[in-house]
Amino acid sequence: MAQDPLVIFTPSGKRGRFPVGTPVLTAARQLGVDLDSVCGGRGICSKCQITPSYGDFSKHGVHVAQDALSECNSVEERYDRVRGLKTGRRLGCQATVQSDVVIDVPPESQVHRQVVRKAAADRVIEMDPATRLFYVEVAEPDMHDPTGDQQRLAKALSEQWEVDDLEVDPKILPVLQKVLRKGDWKVTVALHRSHAEARPRLIALWPGLHEAGIFGLAIDLGSTTIAAHLTNLDTGAVVTSAGIMNPQIRFGEDLMSRVSYAMMNPGGEREMTAAVREAIDTLTADIAKEAGIDAGLILETVFVCNPVMHHLLLGIDPVELGQAPFALATSDALHFSAVELGLTALPAPARIYILPCIAGHVGADAAAVALAEQPGKSEDLALIVDVGTNAEILLGDTSRTLACSSPTGPAFEGAQISSGQRAAPGAIEAIRIDPATREPRFRVIGCDLWSDEDGFADATAQTGITGICGSGIIEAVAEMRMAGLLDPSGLIGSAEATGSERCLPAGRTHEYLIHDGTAGGGPKITVTQGDIRAIQLAKSALYAGARLLMDTRGVDKVDRVVLAGAFGAHISPKHAMVLGMIPDVPLDKVTSAGNAAGTGARIALCSLKARREIEATVRRITKVETAIEPKFQEHFVAANAIPHATDPFPELKKVVPLPQVCFNAGGDGSGGGRRRRRG
Amino acid sequence: MAQDPLVIFTPSGKRGRFPVGTPVLTAARQLGVDLDSVCGGRGICSKCQITPSYGDFSKHGVHVAQDALSECNSVEERYDRVRGLKTGRRLGCQATVQSDVVIDVPPESQVHRQVVRKAAADRVIEMDPATRLFYVEVAEPDMHDPTGDQQRLAKALSEQWEVDDLEVDPKILPVLQKVLRKGDWKVTVALHRSHAEARPRLIALWPGLHEAGIFGLAIDLGSTTIAAHLTNLDTGAVVTSAGIMNPQIRFGEDLMSRVSYAMMNPGGEREMTAAVREAIDTLTADIAKEAGIDAGLILETVFVCNPVMHHLLLGIDPVELGQAPFALATSDALHFSAVELGLTALPAPARIYILPCIAGHVGADAAAVALAEQPGKSEDLALIVDVGTNAEILLGDTSRTLACSSPTGPAFEGAQISSGQRAAPGAIEAIRIDPATREPRFRVIGCDLWSDEDGFADATAQTGITGICGSGIIEAVAEMRMAGLLDPSGLIGSAEATGSERCLPAGRTHEYLIHDGTAGGGPKITVTQGDIRAIQLAKSALYAGARLLMDTRGVDKVDRVVLAGAFGAHISPKHAMVLGMIPDVPLDKVTSAGNAAGTGARIALCSLKARREIEATVRRITKVETAIEPKFQEHFVAANAIPHATDPFPELKKVVPLPQVCFNAGGDGSGGGRRRRRG
Repeated sequence: MAQDPLVIFTPSGKRGRFPVGTPVLTAARQLGVDLDSVCGGRGICSKCQITPSYGDFSKHGVHVAQDALSECNSVEERYDRVRGLKTGRRLGCQATVQSDVVIDVPPESQVHRQVVRKAAADRVIEMDPATRLFYVEVAEPDMHDPTGDQQRLAKALSEQWEVDDLEVDPKILPVLQKVLRKGDWKVTVALHRSHAEARPRLIALWPGLHEAGIFGLAIDLGSTTIAAHLTNLDTGAVVTSAGIMNPQIRFGEDLMSRVSYAMMNPGGEREMTAAVREAIDTLTADIAKEAGIDAGLILETVFVCNPVMHHLLLGIDPVELGQAPFALATSDALHFSAVELGLTALPAPARIYILPCIAGHVGADAAAVALAEQPGKSEDLALIVDVGTNAEILLGDTSRTLACSSPTGPAFEGAQISSGQRAAPGAIEAIRIDPATREPRFRVIGCDLWSDEDGFADATAQTGITGICGSGIIEAVAEMRMAGLLDPSGLIGSAEATGSERCLPAGRTHEYLIHDGTAGGGPKITVTQGDIRAIQLAKSALYAGARLLMDTRGVDKVDRVVLAGAFGAHISPKHAMVLGMIPDVPLDKVTSAGNAAGTGARIALCSLKARREIEATVRRITKVETAIEPKFQEHFVAANAIPHATDPFPELKKVVPLPQVCFNAGGDGSGGGRRRRRG
Repeated sequence: MAQDPLVIFTPSGKRGRFPVGTPVLTAARQLGVDLDSVCGGRGICSKCQITPSYGDFSKHGVHVAQDALSECNSVEERYDRVRGLKTGRRLGCQATVQSDVVIDVPPESQVHRQVVRKAAADRVIEMDPATRLFYVEVAEPDMHDPTGDQQRLAKALSEQWEVDDLEVDPKILPVLQKVLRKGDWKVTVALHRSHAEARPRLIALWPGLHEAGIFGLAIDLGSTTIAAHLTNLDTGAVVTSAGIMNPQIRFGEDLMSRVSYAMMNPGGEREMTAAVREAIDTLTADIAKEAGIDAGLILETVFVCNPVMHHLLLGIDPVELGQAPFALATSDALHFSAVELGLTALPAPARIYILPCIAGHVGADAAAVALAEQPGKSEDLALIVDVGTNAEILLGDTSRTLACSSPTGPAFEGAQISSGQRAAPGAIEAIRIDPATREPRFRVIGCDLWSDEDGFADATAQTGITGICGSGIIEAVAEMRMAGLLDPSGLIGSAEATGSERCLPAGRTHEYLIHDGTAGGGPKITVTQGDIRAIQLAKSALYAGARLLMDTRGVDKVDRVVLAGAFGAHISPKHAMVLGMIPDVPLDKVTSAGNAAGTGARIALCSLKARREIEATVRRITKVETAIEPKFQEHFVAANAIPHATDPFPELKKVVPLPQVCFNAGGDGSGGGRRRRRG
């Protein structure tokens, strides 16, 4: 007796023998090959497309004849006629095995396909969606065997999909009967599982085959802005991204001022909760409109945010986060329905997932960075800093991951800087100072020209030159240090001491003039001694946090540094290191991860496996609380100098000469924040 | 070496040896003895009270010395001083075993104690509450090991109570931190499990030891009235009962008129849902106020109701229930939180349980009757009828249970009766007609005297005599039949034919005068031919339903009949049988079960085991749909005669002589609802 035909699937390599006439989809399922199907093999969803290969495959030891699969049947022909099948493609549920065959499953036919991220890093997201569609044919009601429509739907799912123990969202009950009848007892249901073993929950259904797709939102809920990525839950593709200001700003610019608003104003936390939920509703409606999709198709939302935003989103008074021991109300990952979270632009049964918080100062946003950047999978020791109003810092390699948060304050974002402003057209974002002439040149947002290039004045006439943004002030301070205008203690030298007329007296200190726009009615843009102090405080906090993690890990250097956060993308590694923001490493070992928190949110949105992974990771992370570590103060003081009072920075010194100057009249170089004189 | 002391618990008889010094509570737990404790053995909740017995116990073969338990320690002494311990009682967590001892666990110290029902039947409810209290001491937050308050609470519950996998209701999150701190990290939590294996869900918590108890509502949601029993979830005792009219009456008196309101008015089902939920809120607030408890302590509610009420409570359009095949949207038992069901007087996390529906016409109320009356555990064949606007009928014994619903209409409730009214003061509720004189006497609600007794006029002067309620009309028709005023076909005889001047002509038919109050400005109360027809239709439907179940079961008699429903309590078995409402059985085999649906709701409220039992029972019940059974019409027509055209009623005839009269001019006795003449 001849053997059954051999069926080999690529790229998985899974193989098995099946009787002549077995549909390819059936063979794939029995072998556990990742081949998608929404309609369950009825030839209507087209998700199970495969490509047979013909000829000799010495690698597999088979010859595939031209008639290895059955001829196109009427279902496939109709499908091809109406919607078109790519050349060489077949529907896996219709084509049957006739003889030995090699069958390729293209990426778009795989449930667990890999989606390449847009961002620079080359990591891919493996799709493992929590919400999936199932087309199902339900038995009609029978008076002689009276069961509910829900129960017959559950039975059909069990029989046709081996999906058992169906739960139905309460908000679905009122529409269930109408949809079943409208679809003539054929419906597509969206089932959500909060984890692989959880009961499947019916969160949406449509009559017949639903072809408009389902979507999710990955939301990075920041103190200042709320950014959302509308993502196709089937393909993982980002359809549209959009952002909105966090309206809580009216209650306080930074986190601690919002906490104190809640402390000082009874019900203040409820006001802030209502404000942020309303903004999320607005953002949801806007992004759906922009993408041209029905917001009713957005069935999942993932949030990443810092602990204060986390608590205010949940309606929890953040007061405990404002005082030691900084206790979170809840730290694990959370699951809600949209209605439970008071979000009204999403369909009520839509599922919400919030990543776990690492500690009272290290939130779900830091967890998302860890998910995106995977310090725990790094072979070399990686320091990841997400720079914002607070800096979240992760240090890790395959042996261990540590995390802390450091209160950098808003100076890095241009706040508390005399000429500071948010990143917007007209803001100076880059600056260079000639070490010989000590003359500056700069670039402003909205214009690609440097200020000493022809046409700059014309090109910036519209926006003007309005101030310095975060990356601009970091570059300015670093360039001043490299040009010898600033000594290691952070003192700006006088015109006499520096030889630059741009060093202007300002009371008992000096300021450096970058641009005088007063003749044209614009501002005079200077870097003052106060600006330097503000940047020194911020960078010292950041460096001290990193050093604290290094101490805990028992190392005094790291192998590489990753700058995350939207802001991180704009910081020049060289300038960051001259400033001493980050530990000394070779400059080519400093990379930018872009918006890693947002990427982490997208990964969690697309993958249950990723959620499980980050939940386990967060439990294992070593948490370091900077506020109570005596060594933090010590590191903070030592980091006040530019780049550092005691740490040597040998890699930096290989590429950047730093002038040995001292502008302190007393000459002790202690400087720092204290305005005292000795001797 | 001497053996460890022997500890014997009564009434369980469980025994074991324990080292000297073992607390009684510890011994009880290790033996699986049902001994309550909320505080976990800290000597503050007093739930673990036990009574040691002393002397010789030949049955157990032990002698118990006076010092078999340790002396009262300071904790017990303080407790006794402050709150008082009954004589002989000890705190099981403080008293330790010193030598052989027999220990009685009084009922009030058992979690699974049995609660005797107030109603006539002698069944008891075994407490197995879904929601229980746990006193727990939670670790304070630690900056060096930052976990959320929720996670530390979960850990404490796991360590102190072996309660794992805590879920927290979203509405609890905002209060968690404040309560933990107010209680100085000692709190009482209320944990709910929807079934024995479900994850425990935190639905309420209080600082310190919570001593005000927790409560539940058992709600019988009827078409006309909504009745609620406020029940102590610890003891099972009914604290207060209260009722309210179902405001949906303004959309239609009976179920089908409400279904048609929803069909005719877009959004009509939403109006009715809002109305009933608002009424439940009012009832909840009222009953809590009446009982003097905080409505925030009502942590569970159980609903029983017919399918139309069920769907309207859930916000489901009931239109499918108004037409074949009478498909329920969902038939299984349901679990919600109060907020999911839009109930606002209950605390948002309060749990709702709705009993399963049996079929499109046989609702959760019938399931509740089955739970209360347990036909499936009856050794003899029991017919249980719950008489209301629809009659729910159950037939069962240990071998099998069948159920159907029959459309009796509201005649049994006094509606559609010319002098009919609801049961209220002034309504005739009982009536007797002298077979010799054919003169009536009667009793009205609000007065214990019969109308021919001295003082009746004075006693009823306040209320007047205003009409006939449901039980009154049934008695009136049966008495008329027994007195020879009515023939088997249901025709009222003329004054000449009957010899009674009270038989007054009314068009082409006659009516029987019960009371003429017109002289005093009151109504003239008669039973008209139309009234007889209405009662005949209702009773025929009821009897036909019962017969259909008997057919399906293959029997032509039953062993006993149970009349359930608030109305059932007022029907005299003899009159019901003369009327032919129920099959012929010995009169002493007809019993009343009172409000069995309400009792079933109470049982489900107090016991997870009972919920599991009724869910399993409902799945096994044989459902019979009366609307589509050809035999139903046949039985209906035959049952039109009083008591019946063909069924012999031998038991009835043993005790009640029924005159053989015929008032049909044609003399064929066919009568019935058809006003035709033959011959």
